[in-house]
Amino acid sequence: MRLSTYFLPTLKENPTEAQIVSHRLMLRAGMIRQSAAGIYSWLPMGLKVLRNVEQIVREEQDRAGAQELLMATLQPAELWRESGRFDAYGKEMLRITDRHDREMLYGPTNEEMITDIFRNLVKSYKDLPKQLYQIQWKFRDEVRPRFGVMRGREFLMKDNYSFHADFEDAKKVYDTMYATYLRTFARMGLRAIPVAADPGAIGGNLSHEFQVLAETGESEIYYDAKFDELSANGQQPDPVALRELYAAADEKHDAANCPVPADRLKSARGIEVGHIFYLGKKYSEALNAVVAGPNGEQITVEMGCYGIGVSRLVGAIIEASHDDNGIIWPEPVAPFHVGLVNLRVGDAACDKACDDLYAKLQTAGVEPLYDDRDERAGAKFARMDLIGLPWQLLIGPRGLEKGLAEVKNRKTGERVEISIEAAFDKIVSSYQARHR
Amino acid sequence: MRLSTYFLPTLKENPTEAQIVSHRLMLRAGMIRQSAAGIYSWLPMGLKVLRNVEQIVREEQDRAGAQELLMATLQPAELWRESGRFDAYGKEMLRITDRHDREMLYGPTNEEMITDIFRNLVKSYKDLPKQLYQIQWKFRDEVRPRFGVMRGREFLMKDNYSFHADFEDAKKVYDTMYATYLRTFARMGLRAIPVAADPGAIGGNLSHEFQVLAETGESEIYYDAKFDELSANGQQPDPVALRELYAAADEKHDAANCPVPADRLKSARGIEVGHIFYLGKKYSEALNAVVAGPNGEQITVEMGCYGIGVSRLVGAIIEASHDDNGIIWPEPVAPFHVGLVNLRVGDAACDKACDDLYAKLQTAGVEPLYDDRDERAGAKFARMDLIGLPWQLLIGPRGLEKGLAEVKNRKTGERVEISIEAAFDKIVSSYQARHR
Repeated sequence: MRLSTYFLPTLKENPTEAQIVSHRLMLRAGMIRQSAAGIYSWLPMGLKVLRNVEQIVREEQDRAGAQELLMATLQPAELWRESGRFDAYGKEMLRITDRHDREMLYGPTNEEMITDIFRNLVKSYKDLPKQLYQIQWKFRDEVRPRFGVMRGREFLMKDNYSFHADFEDAKKVYDTMYATYLRTFARMGLRAIPVAADPGAIGGNLSHEFQVLAETGESEIYYDAKFDELSANGQQPDPVALRELYAAADEKHDAANCPVPADRLKSARGIEVGHIFYLGKKYSEALNAVVAGPNGEQITVEMGCYGIGVSRLVGAIIEASHDDNGIIWPEPVAPFHVGLVNLRVGDAACDKACDDLYAKLQTAGVEPLYDDRDERAGAKFARMDLIGLPWQLLIGPRGLEKGLAEVKNRKTGERVEISIEAAFDKIVSSYQARHR
Repeated sequence: MRLSTYFLPTLKENPTEAQIVSHRLMLRAGMIRQSAAGIYSWLPMGLKVLRNVEQIVREEQDRAGAQELLMATLQPAELWRESGRFDAYGKEMLRITDRHDREMLYGPTNEEMITDIFRNLVKSYKDLPKQLYQIQWKFRDEVRPRFGVMRGREFLMKDNYSFHADFEDAKKVYDTMYATYLRTFARMGLRAIPVAADPGAIGGNLSHEFQVLAETGESEIYYDAKFDELSANGQQPDPVALRELYAAADEKHDAANCPVPADRLKSARGIEVGHIFYLGKKYSEALNAVVAGPNGEQITVEMGCYGIGVSRLVGAIIEASHDDNGIIWPEPVAPFHVGLVNLRVGDAACDKACDDLYAKLQTAGVEPLYDDRDERAGAKFARMDLIGLPWQLLIGPRGLEKGLAEVKNRKTGERVEISIEAAFDKIVSSYQARHR
C-alpha cells in the first residue's frame, strides 16, 4: 500500500479527550474515529489490526473444536423474559421498539439466543458435546463510556457457548478453553494471567478472568512469581502447571490468608481481555434446553461460556506494547510487517530502488506500507514510529550510492546498514518465520 | 469436518413459512435460523457461504483501489438531521434512544457517517480520489419482512463511497465499479445484467442496478439479446461492450420506444443484488465536505456510492442455482468443495479408505465434509444433494473391493466410477483450478 493513497489520517498532536495511552495512540495513528460516545469507526489501518486479532482468536477456537456461527445483533425481548434477565439486566441493555411496537434489544451477550438455537435444533445426547461460537458486535450502554475501544459501547466480542450431557464433559471443555486462551493471547505477544474469579471458594476453579499485564491496567493483580518463569513474553505457557498457581485480583486478594509466601508474591496491573465460566444449568433450565439420553430420558444440558473482548484487545495490546514514540505492534497482529521509507522522493535512484523493493516485497507475499510521500525525513521517521510497524526499511541517497539500505527494528530500536539484497532477505525471512 | 460432530441441522420436511425456494432450501440445509421476523442467525454452513461471498466482494473492491474500513452499526441522529434524512427516512429507519435519552438509529445506509469521517479527516484535493468501503450489518425495518435473507431486516451489505475533486474523476471510478461488479458476480457463477436505473434519460447512465437472472426473480427485465452472447454463465463480460446495450426493468421499459428490435429483445426475471450511483454533491453540500484546491480555493467534493447486498446474494445464488433435490453451489462460494460419503460406516475397509481420504484431502488443502454417520445410503445421498456441495466422493464396500470410488458432480449429475487415486486427483485438481 502506498502511503500517498492510503487513508491514514495521523495526528501530530495528542487529542485532549483521550485519557489513556492506547486511546491516544489509536487516535493519533489514524486507527479509529469516534462517531458518538463509546462508538467508533475503525479506519483502514485499525481494521487491519482488528481483523488480525480476530483471526488469531478464530483459529484457536477452531483448533479447540468450536464451530463458528453468527447471531444477529438484535434480539427479541421474549427470550430474555424467559430467562428473567430482560427486567434484571438494567440500563446497560439497549432496549429497542420496532415499527410494530415489538420489544427488542441490542445483544449485550448471547446466552439466551444460543440456548434457543440449541433447544430447537439439537435433540439427542449423541450430538453432544457442542461448542458454538461467534465473533460479533455487541452493545452495552455504559453510563460513562471512556478509554476508547477499551470501554466502548459497541464492541466486538468472541463468545463461545458449550453444551454437555454431564458435568465431567463440561469440565473437559472448560480445561481446553483455559489452555486455548493461554495460546490465543501468547500468539498476540501478550502475557495473560488467569485469575480465578473466586480463588479458594468451591467452584471458583471454574471461572477465570484472563488479565493482560500492562502498567496502565485497570486493576491490581497479585500472583505467584512462578507465573513469570512459566509464561515469559510471547511463549506458550503450560496450562496444567499454571492452573495450580495462585492469582487474584485486588478485591479478592487477602494478604493475611494468601497461600503464597510474601517473597514469592508479585503484583502488577492487569486488563481483563477474556473470561471463561462454567454455567451449569442456569440457562438450560430457564429455557428448557433438554436432549434425549441413551434410554430416552430427558437430560437438561450443562453449559459453559467463554468470552474474549476482540476490539478491547487492540487497545490492550497497545497498553502492553508502546513507548514514548508510539505503538510497537507484536508481529502477528501488525497491520503491515514493514514500512518502506523513501527518504528522497523525486530522486531517480531512490524512487527506482523503492519501487523495485515495493514490487519484490509484494511478490514475496509481504505487503509493505510504502511511504512515497514528498516530506522531510524527520516527519517520516516520527510517523513510522508512531504507527509501530515491526520493521522499517529506509532508503536514502547516501546509502544507496554504496548499495546500502537501513533496517530498523521498531521494538529494539536496533538499526543496521546492510546491502539492499540482505535487507530484503531479512524482512522476508522475518515475515515468513511469523506467517509460515 | 466430520458430519458426526458438525452442527448441520438439516430438515427433511419443507418448512411451511418459506414461500420461495432459497428460503426453503436455506432452512432445510441448516444454513440459517430465524430469531425474529426478518432476523436470522447464520449457522455454521450458512456462515461459510456468507464469508465466501463476502470475500469475493472484498477482493474485487480491493482490486479496484477501494480501502476497507468499518463503521459502527449505531449512528447518532444529529448527522441525519444535517442531511435532512432523519425525519424524511420514514419507518424503515429503526430509531433508538439510549440511556441518556440521546437519539440514535441503526444504520440503514451510511452516506452521512462516511461523509462525516471524510470532512473531518481529509483536507486537500491531493488526497483525492478516495474510495472507502465497508462490509457491515445494516437494519431496515421492513413492514413485511419475507423471503428469508432476500428481504430481511438485519442484513449484510457492502457499501463503498467515493470522493472526487471533479465530475470527470467521479465518472472514472463509476466506470471502474461497473466493471468491478460484473467481475464480482461472474466470480460467483452468476449472470448479472446491469440495468440503467433510468434508461435514456440524461444522467441515467450513472445509476445502474445489477440484476441476477433467476426464474424466481422479483421483477421482469427486458434486455438486448447481445447480453447473452457477451456474458455467458460465469464468464467475465466486457464492460465497455455491455455498457452500450439496452436493458430495462418492467416499470421503465417502454415497448413502443424500445431501441432494440423485437427479434433481439429478450426478457427474464431478475433479482437486484447491487446498485451503483453517482451522487454528485447531495451529501457533500448538506454536510459541508470540502477540500482545499490547488490554489487554496474550497472545493465541495463529488461523491458516488456503490452497494452490494452480501447476505441477499446467498439467497440469490440459490435462486439461480438449484434443482428439485436441493442447492447446487457454484464452486467459488461452496461451503465445502466435496462431500466424502462413507456408505457403510462400521465396515473396516470403508472406514479406513474414508479416513485415509479425509486426511489426504485435508493435507492437500481441501477441507471435505465427511459423512461418517451410521445411516442408510439413501438418506446420505438425499442430504448431500440437498446441501449442494459441488462434488461427492462416494465410498462403498462393493466398489472398494475393486479399488474404486464413485465421483458425482452435483451440477451435471454425472457419476463416474474410477480408482480411489484418480478420484482423489480429480477432486484436488478441480479445487486447485478454482482456488489457485
